[in-house]
Amino acid sequence: MSLLVVGSVAFDAIETPHGKVERTLGGAASYFALAASYFTRVRVVAVVGEDFTAPDEAVLRRSRIDLSGLERACGKTFFWSGRYSPNMNERTTLATELNVFADFRPTLPDAYCDSSHIFLGNIDPSLQRSVLEQVRSKPRAVGLDTMNYWIERTPAELRETLRHTQILMINDDETRQLTGEHNLMRAAKRVFRMGPGTVVIKRGEHGALLVHDKFLFSIPAFPLEEVHDPTGAGDSFAGGFMGYLASAGCINQQTLRRAMVYGSVLGGFAVERFGVEGLTRLTRAKINARARRFSRLTSFTL
Amino acid sequence: MSLLVVGSVAFDAIETPHGKVERTLGGAASYFALAASYFTRVRVVAVVGEDFTAPDEAVLRRSRIDLSGLERACGKTFFWSGRYSPNMNERTTLATELNVFADFRPTLPDAYCDSSHIFLGNIDPSLQRSVLEQVRSKPRAVGLDTMNYWIERTPAELRETLRHTQILMINDDETRQLTGEHNLMRAAKRVFRMGPGTVVIKRGEHGALLVHDKFLFSIPAFPLEEVHDPTGAGDSFAGGFMGYLASAGCINQQTLRRAMVYGSVLGGFAVERFGVEGLTRLTRAKINARARRFSRLTSFTL
Repeated sequence: MSLLVVGSVAFDAIETPHGKVERTLGGAASYFALAASYFTRVRVVAVVGEDFTAPDEAVLRRSRIDLSGLERACGKTFFWSGRYSPNMNERTTLATELNVFADFRPTLPDAYCDSSHIFLGNIDPSLQRSVLEQVRSKPRAVGLDTMNYWIERTPAELRETLRHTQILMINDDETRQLTGEHNLMRAAKRVFRMGPGTVVIKRGEHGALLVHDKFLFSIPAFPLEEVHDPTGAGDSFAGGFMGYLASAGCINQQTLRRAMVYGSVLGGFAVERFGVEGLTRLTRAKINARARRFSRLTSFTL
Repeated sequence: MSLLVVGSVAFDAIETPHGKVERTLGGAASYFALAASYFTRVRVVAVVGEDFTAPDEAVLRRSRIDLSGLERACGKTFFWSGRYSPNMNERTTLATELNVFADFRPTLPDAYCDSSHIFLGNIDPSLQRSVLEQVRSKPRAVGLDTMNYWIERTPAELRETLRHTQILMINDDETRQLTGEHNLMRAAKRVFRMGPGTVVIKRGEHGALLVHDKFLFSIPAFPLEEVHDPTGAGDSFAGGFMGYLASAGCINQQTLRRAMVYGSVLGGFAVERFGVEGLTRLTRAKINARARRFSRLTSFTL
């Protein structure tokens, strides 16, 4: 099994009530790849600029992360800056400098073209589709993230890419916006008609909901005493989810439920530290222990 | 076992995107008593006015609801009117007419004074305490609901009543306001120092969290396709929770987890119909079937 992710690698400047960093490795593909690497090998397709140094790359350079698809372009790396409100429920974007990301055209190294699992991070839907077109054999599972920007500006392209997607992973507001339906259950049914047979609705501190034609699964977020930086929670969730699924091989009700748990576990670890730091020193033992705590958190007998 | 509830019985005028009613039975004690009556006998302490007719009373007059503590006073019954936003996430109170509720001084019939389980609905904390003072033997469990109004205006009285409370059942904003702590886990630990050993945090469409010194339990709300009227969801949750606990006899980790499930089940049934209608035609079979669906919604193996 081999998991490919396309998305952003960025530098972030982040301010939360717990601290401030001026330049830390970020971007959806970074969080995703680190989270997924505890489960399976991950192939990264992204672009960075000349300011992306060896120490930056060292954070991502792990035995299970393949960076041969990390393109180096002339110019600066994508930069994002944001500040969280005192209760961290809201954030203000202070700066978004696309830089080399503006001209990003994902190109897969030959060795990536047999990827069995693919995650299309939140980028232009036509670029997401270009990744699928470069994969030779039909992948076992395609997951997709998107956002209000693409839902509003490129609805036709997004619809076309969704036709080739099995798992849509977005938040509740995006689900409502995409479908024009407030009720999430009815919204999920509309998504089914667009292509994906599985809708994973990420709800941040309220957990996540999986809607499948045949079953429902809902998991709360693990109640944490220390939340230092919510950045990347959803991307880490996606990485844990897709990483576990790729490692499991088959996709069925049991593995999808477990993928939700591992996604939640990785999302929780991510927010306990600044930037990607919460994801860099984990072990499978720590991940499994947190998963068992999830089991105790949610289990009951009737 | 015998469960006593003190709180409001009211007439509500409600407008939601699904319809409008001009005068329907409402009030926390009504929702609570109906929900709890599927599990145990419930003794109601409340006040109504001269406009409370036999057909109104007939809605509450069930074999397991004891209305001998329902006082009739000169004047009109408490009236509340509210309108929900199109997505039902927000509501605007259009009118609150306390009427006979303004001079409510709860008086327990003699037969109520041996109640083993007590739920102090959201009223003045000094009135809540006067109920406890009328109970002869020490109850097995006292649950309490309150709101921002009492947290702000009568903090000392609320603190005193909390000293005699085992289970605090409030929403997340109220938990934060009561403790001055945003993080819910740390907030719950502050509540422990005020008296209650169990904190149940109601989160509406996001489910509920139980924090106990020895364990955590979290349950999502059941994803419903039809939500017609959110009024009374929290009171129905409390009724299912306390009703099940009273019927179970002992309070331990297993029964508290189950109480959360039955609370969620009753809260879900309540919002599917207008006013108390969703609670009037249930059966234990329907309740148990929904509880089993909750089990399938949340269960996984590692």
